[in-house]
Amino acid sequence: MAASRLLKAALLVGRTSLRQHTVATRVPLVAVRATCCRGFQTSAIQREQHLQGYKDSDRHHGKYPARTHYCGQLRASDNGQHVVLSGWAQSPRAMSQDLIFLPIRDSTGVTQLVYRSENCPAHLKAQIQNLSAESVICVEGIVHRRPEGMANQKQTTGEIEVEITNIYCLNPSSPSLPFLPTQPQLPNEEIRLRYRYLDLRRDELQKNIRLRSVTANTVRQYLIGHGFTEIETPTLFKSTPEGAREFIVPTRKRGAFYALPQSPQQHKQMLMAAGFDRYFQIARCFRDEDLRADRQPEFTQIDLEMSFITVDDIQRIIEGMITAIWDKALGMKLNSSMFPHMTYHDAMSKYGSDKPDVRFDMQINQIESYVSDVAGQDSIDCMVVKKGSSLTGGDLKNTQKAFDLVDSKEFAFAKINENNIHQWLRKCGFLRHSQHIDSVQSKLNSKLNIEQGDLVLVNKRPNYLYGGNTLMGRLRLHFANTMQEKGLLQLDPNAFKFLWVESFPLFTPDEQGIRTWQSTHHPFTAPFDEDIPLLATDPAKVRGQHYDLVLNGMEIGGGSIRIHSPVMQSFIFDKVLQLEKYEYQRFDHLIDALGGGCPPHGGIALGFDRLMAILCNVASIRDVIAFPKAAGGKDFVVNSPSEVTAAQLKEYGLRLTEE
Amino acid sequence: MAASRLLKAALLVGRTSLRQHTVATRVPLVAVRATCCRGFQTSAIQREQHLQGYKDSDRHHGKYPARTHYCGQLRASDNGQHVVLSGWAQSPRAMSQDLIFLPIRDSTGVTQLVYRSENCPAHLKAQIQNLSAESVICVEGIVHRRPEGMANQKQTTGEIEVEITNIYCLNPSSPSLPFLPTQPQLPNEEIRLRYRYLDLRRDELQKNIRLRSVTANTVRQYLIGHGFTEIETPTLFKSTPEGAREFIVPTRKRGAFYALPQSPQQHKQMLMAAGFDRYFQIARCFRDEDLRADRQPEFTQIDLEMSFITVDDIQRIIEGMITAIWDKALGMKLNSSMFPHMTYHDAMSKYGSDKPDVRFDMQINQIESYVSDVAGQDSIDCMVVKKGSSLTGGDLKNTQKAFDLVDSKEFAFAKINENNIHQWLRKCGFLRHSQHIDSVQSKLNSKLNIEQGDLVLVNKRPNYLYGGNTLMGRLRLHFANTMQEKGLLQLDPNAFKFLWVESFPLFTPDEQGIRTWQSTHHPFTAPFDEDIPLLATDPAKVRGQHYDLVLNGMEIGGGSIRIHSPVMQSFIFDKVLQLEKYEYQRFDHLIDALGGGCPPHGGIALGFDRLMAILCNVASIRDVIAFPKAAGGKDFVVNSPSEVTAAQLKEYGLRLTEE
Repeated sequence: MAASRLLKAALLVGRTSLRQHTVATRVPLVAVRATCCRGFQTSAIQREQHLQGYKDSDRHHGKYPARTHYCGQLRASDNGQHVVLSGWAQSPRAMSQDLIFLPIRDSTGVTQLVYRSENCPAHLKAQIQNLSAESVICVEGIVHRRPEGMANQKQTTGEIEVEITNIYCLNPSSPSLPFLPTQPQLPNEEIRLRYRYLDLRRDELQKNIRLRSVTANTVRQYLIGHGFTEIETPTLFKSTPEGAREFIVPTRKRGAFYALPQSPQQHKQMLMAAGFDRYFQIARCFRDEDLRADRQPEFTQIDLEMSFITVDDIQRIIEGMITAIWDKALGMKLNSSMFPHMTYHDAMSKYGSDKPDVRFDMQINQIESYVSDVAGQDSIDCMVVKKGSSLTGGDLKNTQKAFDLVDSKEFAFAKINENNIHQWLRKCGFLRHSQHIDSVQSKLNSKLNIEQGDLVLVNKRPNYLYGGNTLMGRLRLHFANTMQEKGLLQLDPNAFKFLWVESFPLFTPDEQGIRTWQSTHHPFTAPFDEDIPLLATDPAKVRGQHYDLVLNGMEIGGGSIRIHSPVMQSFIFDKVLQLEKYEYQRFDHLIDALGGGCPPHGGIALGFDRLMAILCNVASIRDVIAFPKAAGGKDFVVNSPSEVTAAQLKEYGLRLTEE
Repeated sequence: MAASRLLKAALLVGRTSLRQHTVATRVPLVAVRATCCRGFQTSAIQREQHLQGYKDSDRHHGKYPARTHYCGQLRASDNGQHVVLSGWAQSPRAMSQDLIFLPIRDSTGVTQLVYRSENCPAHLKAQIQNLSAESVICVEGIVHRRPEGMANQKQTTGEIEVEITNIYCLNPSSPSLPFLPTQPQLPNEEIRLRYRYLDLRRDELQKNIRLRSVTANTVRQYLIGHGFTEIETPTLFKSTPEGAREFIVPTRKRGAFYALPQSPQQHKQMLMAAGFDRYFQIARCFRDEDLRADRQPEFTQIDLEMSFITVDDIQRIIEGMITAIWDKALGMKLNSSMFPHMTYHDAMSKYGSDKPDVRFDMQINQIESYVSDVAGQDSIDCMVVKKGSSLTGGDLKNTQKAFDLVDSKEFAFAKINENNIHQWLRKCGFLRHSQHIDSVQSKLNSKLNIEQGDLVLVNKRPNYLYGGNTLMGRLRLHFANTMQEKGLLQLDPNAFKFLWVESFPLFTPDEQGIRTWQSTHHPFTAPFDEDIPLLATDPAKVRGQHYDLVLNGMEIGGGSIRIHSPVMQSFIFDKVLQLEKYEYQRFDHLIDALGGGCPPHGGIALGFDRLMAILCNVASIRDVIAFPKAAGGKDFVVNSPSEVTAAQLKEYGLRLTEE
C-alpha cells in the first residue's frame, strides 16, 4: 500500500534519540515561564525532531502489573506485603550513593518509595535518577514498617516505606513542565489555566472537584428521595425577545438560529403542565456576559419545580437539601431555625441590600421622623460604624471619592468624640438645617446607641425602595471590610448565615426608560394573592411570591410561585410590561401550556458553582470548575474561542461584517 | 403613576366574560386539527378579547387545601377518610340527574370521584358539568369502599370512590385542546410534539421519562460506588479541524467562535492527565447532522474514563453497570456470560456487520476455497435463508432492485428444491463457471446444511474487510425482516443479546480519497501492543484496542484504550493520518497533556437515549426524551430554530449571506 511504503521510507531518514528528553535537567522556572505561552517543549521537540521515524522507547509499552493499592492506602499493618503502586513520581532525593527516596503520588496521597543498594537491583538506580518529576510510573516493592521515630506524622502512609523491586516508566514527563503541581509558589492564573491538567493535580483542586461530585450526588439523592424526577431539558433552545444575554447557534438553514438557554425556566413550567409534579435537573445554563466581566459564560444550577405547593413547601425542601449538603460536605448540622426570613423592604431599609450579610450587625436606621423638616417626602438613612472614628480623614476622603460623594448635599458623616457627642447633629451636613436637632439629639444618641469613637453616616434618599441596594448598603459593606482590615471588626470564618428574603415588589421601574415597568425577577412570577386586584390599578404595590436564599451576603438561589393563569400571564405581558405583540407572541407556547391544564406550581434555582465555592471556602468559582473560562470567556486550555473557516461560515449562511 | 392610570382607564373598556370559554362544548377533533397549527384558542381568545381589563374569575385564586394523597394511592383500607386530591379532571359522565362520575388523574393513577345528589352540595353539580377535560382541580371528599362486585380491577384505586364535598377549579383547561392525552387515537407526531406538555401526560411517556431518571440514578450510584467522580466538562468548546458535524457559537469578539462538543473526549483524557483516575459524566453532546436526517442534534451519553486499566477492566465495569440497570429497570438478572466477545473480522465475515444482531443465526460462510478458480483473490460470501424458497419471484426481484443487484455479475441466488438440490451450483450465477462445482456440490450442501426449501445467496467481494457492513450483511438483515413478516422466523421479543465487538483495524481507507488512511473510530485509540511496530510499516494490519458494545444489532456504546504516548500520538497525526500541520496543531494541548505525565488510560461512551429506547421498548428515541427535536432539528414546542434580529447578528460581527 502506498502509505506504508511511504512510512517505511520515512523510517530510514531520522532517528535522533528521544533519550535526552527524559534525562535533561529541569529547566529553571524563569526560562520556562518565558516559553510556556507557546506550549512547553514536549510537542514541539517531538514533532519536529522525531517524527521522521517512529521511536518511542522511553516509555514502557505493553502489560504492566495491576496496582494493588492506591498511594495513600498503605499502613504499618501491611508490613512485608508485596505491593504494586501506580502514580506520579515526585523528584527523587539521593541521600547517598546507596540510598534514594522517591515519593510516588496519586489523588489519595503519597507513599515513600526507597532504593537501597544492598536490597534493590542495581539497574534501578539510574532509572530512578533519570526520572523527571511528574513522570507516570508503576512500581513493585515490599512494604517496610519505618523504624521507631522515623514515621512521618503528616502523611497517612507515614508509618511505612516501600522498597522498590521493579519500576515501569509508563510515561515520562517532559522535563520542561511550566510548573509542578507540588511547588509551593504557583505561577499566575493564566499559566495555571492553560496547563489546567497540571493545576488540577494539586490537592486543593482535587478535593474541590471531588467534593463537587459528592455534593451533586447528595443533591440528587435528597431530591430523588423526596419524589423528584430528574429530567433533561434542551440546550438548543430558541432566541427570546430579551436575547441580549444569550448565545445564538446558527443552523445550516440560512437565517435560522437556536439559542442557548439562560435557564430551563420555560421547559420546567411546561413539565409541570405535563404532570411531572416534581422535577429537578442539575442544569447547564449560558449567559453571554460582557466580555470584560469576570463571569463564567456557562454555569450550572440546581433547578427544581413542584406542582400544587406553597412557598413554604419549597423552602422546606431547600432547607432540607442544604442541611443534607452541609452535613455531608462539612459534617455540620443545620436546622430550620438557621433559615430566618426577612422582607425585601426590611432588607433594603435595615441593611441597604436585597441580600444582606447578617454575619455582622451594623444596621441602618431611618431617622426622617426626627428631622421631618429637612426630610420632606424622603427617607434619611443613618448608620453607626462602631469605633469608626479611628478611621483617618484620608480614609474617609477616599471613601467619599470612591462613592462619588465629595460634593453630595444629601450625604454627611460625623466622627463622634467627647466634645461633639451631644451636638454632632449641629455640624452634620444637611441635618444641621433642621429646627429639631437640639430636641432630638439625645433621643437619637440613645436610640442608635451612639458612643464616643463611633462614626455616624447619614444619607437622604427617596422613600420608594427598588433595585438591589442603597448607597448606605454599599457603604455598610465598604466599612465592614475596612474595619475588618483594621482588626476592629471580627467575622467568624465558619459562620454560615442563611436568610430567606421575600415579599419583593413584582415590578421595578424600567431604568432603561423604554417601558414603565420591568419584572423585578422574571415575568412568570406570581403576585401575592391579596395583591392581584392591584395588578390593574397600582402595579408598584404588587408583591411577588418570590424568595431569594442568601448566604453570608451572597445570593445562592432564587425562585418563586409562578403564574398559572394564562389570563393573568397575558395581562402582565401586555398591560403591565407593555410588551409589543411580536414580543409576547414568542411566549405563546407557554400561554398555551398554562391554558391547557397547568397546575399551580413554583420552584427555585440554586447557583451550584457559587454554592461549591462557599463549601470549598474559595474566593473564585474557577476553583470549583474543572475547566473554567478565564475573564472574557477565554479558554486557555484549548485556545478558544477561535476562528472558523470561511467555508464553515458559508455553510451557515453567514459571513463576517467588515471590520 | 402613569402606568397605573393607563391601566385603570383600560379596565373600563372591555369586560367580555371568559365564562363561555369554560362551558363551551368540546370542538370536534377534525376542526381542532385544522386550527391547531396556529396554536389552540386559549392564547388568542384571551389576548384579543379579554385583555382590555383584567378579569380572571374562572379559576380559584388563593389558598386551597393541601393534597393528602396522590390519585393512584387510595385503597379500601382508606374507607371513610376525608381526603384531598389534586389533579386533572377527565370528562365527567352523568349517569342520571343525581349521579355523576368524574375521574381525576395524576401521574400515579386515577381515582373515581362521584357526585350523588343525596349526599353532595347541590352547587357542585353545575361546577362538575362545566369542567372541561384536563382542567386542574383540587377536590375534597370522603373515601367510600365500592359495593361488592363494583370494584374496577384495572385500576389500583378500583376498590374505592371518593364522594365529593368540595371542588376548587384551580385552572380550567381550554375546551379546544388539540387532543386529549387519554384519547385512544392520537394525532400525528407533529401535533404531539407541538403540544408536548399534553403528550407527556400520557402514561407511556410518563413512564419512559421517569424510568430515564431512575436509570440515570442507577448509573450514577453504580459508578460512584466503583470509585468514579462525576465531573462536568465545558459545553462551549473549540472548533476542531473535522468540524463538519459541529455547531459553532459566535462570540461578541468578531470572528471568534466556540463550538459545541461532539463528546467530552479531549477533556476526559485531560482529566486522566490531571490524576482523576476514574471520571464519569452523563454528558450532553451535539452533532450538526444533515438537516434531513432523523437524528437528534443534541443527545446524551454515559461517558467514562479510567486510568491504569485494561480493556478487560473497563468491560467488567460496563457489564456490571448494564446488569444493575437491567435489574432495576426490568427486574432481569444478567451475568457476565451474557456478554460474549467477537472480533471485528468474525463479525464482518460471519454476520456482514460490525454490530451483528445475534438474536437469529443465519450466518454467512466464506466458500472461496471450494471454488478457488472463480474466486481468485476475492472472498465469496454464502448465506442460507432457511425456508427462503417460499419467497416469490417478485419478492426476490424487488430485493435485487432495492440492493441494486439486478445486473450484478458478483451476486447470485438459488431457491433449493428437490430437483436442484444436488446441482444448484450449476445454475448459480458466476459460480457455474467454476470447474469444481460438481465435486464440491455435496460437500457444500453438507457443510452449510442446505435443504430443500432454502434460499441460497452468494456474493463475491474483496477479501479485505473494512467499514460497517457488507452487502451480504445488509441482505441478512433484510431477509430476517422479510422472514419475520411472513412468520417464517421468530425472534424472542424479550431477548437481549449483548456482544463485545473487538479487534477493529485501527485505520480504514479514507473513502473521500483525500488521505490514505482515516481512523476507524478516532485518532486517540491505542494500537494493540504487539502491533505497534506495524504503525510505521503496515498501518492496514494494526488493530486498535477499541471495543463496541452491541445489543440486538444496535451499537449502544464504544470505547478504547487511548494513546498515552505523545510521540505515538504525534506520529499517527503526522505520518499515518497525514494531517496538515495546522490541523494537528489544534491538538497541541492534548499532546502537551500526554507529555506532561499522563497515565495509561481508556474509557467508553454509551448512548443514553438509545439505551433508554431499548429499555422502554420504543422504536424512536424521541419517546424517551422530554423535549426532542423533530426531523430536521425543528423544535415544534417553541418554534425553533428561528430568526434573530439584524442587531443581534451585528453584535456578533455577522451578517447573512445573500440568498
